[in-house]
Amino acid sequence: MPQAETILFKRITIVGPGLLGASIAMGLRDKKISGEIWAWLRDEKKADACGKSYWCDRALIDLKEAVIGSDLILLCTPVESILDQLDRISQCAGEGCIVTDVGSLKKEICEKGEQVFQNKPSFFVGSHPMAGSEKTGMEFASADLLIQKHCIVTPTKNTSEDDINKITMLWKRLGMVVSRMGIEEHDEVMSWISHLPHLVASSLINAITSRNPKMIRYCGNGLRDTTRIAAGNPQMWMQILLGNKENLQQGIDDLIKSLKDFKETLSNGDRVDLLKMLQSAKDSRDLIDEY
Amino acid sequence: MPQAETILFKRITIVGPGLLGASIAMGLRDKKISGEIWAWLRDEKKADACGKSYWCDRALIDLKEAVIGSDLILLCTPVESILDQLDRISQCAGEGCIVTDVGSLKKEICEKGEQVFQNKPSFFVGSHPMAGSEKTGMEFASADLLIQKHCIVTPTKNTSEDDINKITMLWKRLGMVVSRMGIEEHDEVMSWISHLPHLVASSLINAITSRNPKMIRYCGNGLRDTTRIAAGNPQMWMQILLGNKENLQQGIDDLIKSLKDFKETLSNGDRVDLLKMLQSAKDSRDLIDEY
Repeated sequence: MPQAETILFKRITIVGPGLLGASIAMGLRDKKISGEIWAWLRDEKKADACGKSYWCDRALIDLKEAVIGSDLILLCTPVESILDQLDRISQCAGEGCIVTDVGSLKKEICEKGEQVFQNKPSFFVGSHPMAGSEKTGMEFASADLLIQKHCIVTPTKNTSEDDINKITMLWKRLGMVVSRMGIEEHDEVMSWISHLPHLVASSLINAITSRNPKMIRYCGNGLRDTTRIAAGNPQMWMQILLGNKENLQQGIDDLIKSLKDFKETLSNGDRVDLLKMLQSAKDSRDLIDEY
Repeated sequence: MPQAETILFKRITIVGPGLLGASIAMGLRDKKISGEIWAWLRDEKKADACGKSYWCDRALIDLKEAVIGSDLILLCTPVESILDQLDRISQCAGEGCIVTDVGSLKKEICEKGEQVFQNKPSFFVGSHPMAGSEKTGMEFASADLLIQKHCIVTPTKNTSEDDINKITMLWKRLGMVVSRMGIEEHDEVMSWISHLPHLVASSLINAITSRNPKMIRYCGNGLRDTTRIAAGNPQMWMQILLGNKENLQQGIDDLIKSLKDFKETLSNGDRVDLLKMLQSAKDSRDLIDEY
């Protein structure tokens, strides 16, 4: 049993420990952040296997049983499942319990959270730990996945400073760089820096294979990196892209405009302009590595 | 001095040893492929530094002096410099010398090579070792950069089987996977799997920073990977993109069509179609990792 002064929560329940949920759980155990760690899984066989993980004290397939008595509930299922589970969890989460999630969309989830947790003894505050990968499943999980990555906490007007601080402390203790953002701003920023890149990677690989599927045999590092995220879980990304479609449509329009600019510059053979466009892209990309 | 039976060439001159040229030179030395390795550099200070590298027997700034007497000359400068150097090298390369290059475009280079090496005692055959990186410069060089990467050799109707075999052997000994391709096919394939991805990465980062340059602070692994190649040398890429502009324009059109398909599917909220598009992208991307 970890020492009481290092514990932030007595019992945390991870709802749906996949790649991200299990990575979080490993960090919680390694850093002694929680007394106990329980898990909820839909599938009995997977629950049995999960129960044998070093980080898991109990794995259950009954959601109510899995969350009652925990003082932190972490929803790690895909976006639409989080939306489904919020209502049921608000019915059974106990006095003072904090409920958070890891969904890539915050507006819909936090609005629903705010609505169903109203007048309940527990509280909801949204989180978005940006620590995904194109891989899925507990077998790839590692506490290192979270280290030095961004986590955005999205309080609403009803969220208390105490809850924000406790959730912020949780992600910081797991090694993440925590920021606060409004739910609408979050979804807009993500549409540009996460959802649009996914859609672009998928469009690019689809365009290439439609032209001639044999070409990808000669793939070098460039195409490999540019399309890596297109290998992500289609079901999960379908929910994310649809859930953020208004913002994304603007992103697609801007990107098409940027591609057309390149095409026109090439067509004019304008060396000066082309160099400027490539230099400006390089300057921005170099900045990313400084953050 | 390496043993004679392992040597493919008595003396190789690397013209312009940057990231790729110096990586090749390291492989040549480590694997004892060449008796001596000489280098040509434009800048005297850089030549002095280069001459101290373990792989370099002599570094010169006079091109003629650097290549006379070598039995393999490897042109590793940017595409337009290769085009400039071909003529001068054809004037001084000795009897039986093979000249090859590492340029990302083959049609223009090989047509010029064929023309200027006609009725000369030496021979030209084009190569494209696909082992780039967004980094540039000798300081990042490593023989490992070449291992298990594709190298495409592009003979023309005048290239002898002997020369093709010798060049093929060279790249294989350096650890590369060698294929043969016609010069036009090469440039078309590269426009899709290398030049279009570069242009897409640059367009994406430009579109995002035009919208709001602060957003990239929250960059996760997705955007990081998708845009990595946009950090490549703008001058080098300007030459490549312009040199392949006809093929690239087709690629841009196809990509815009693929983006518009996504936009329409999102706008219709068509879950089945969106899932199909994401699944098809995933299937193709998964294939890449199997090659």
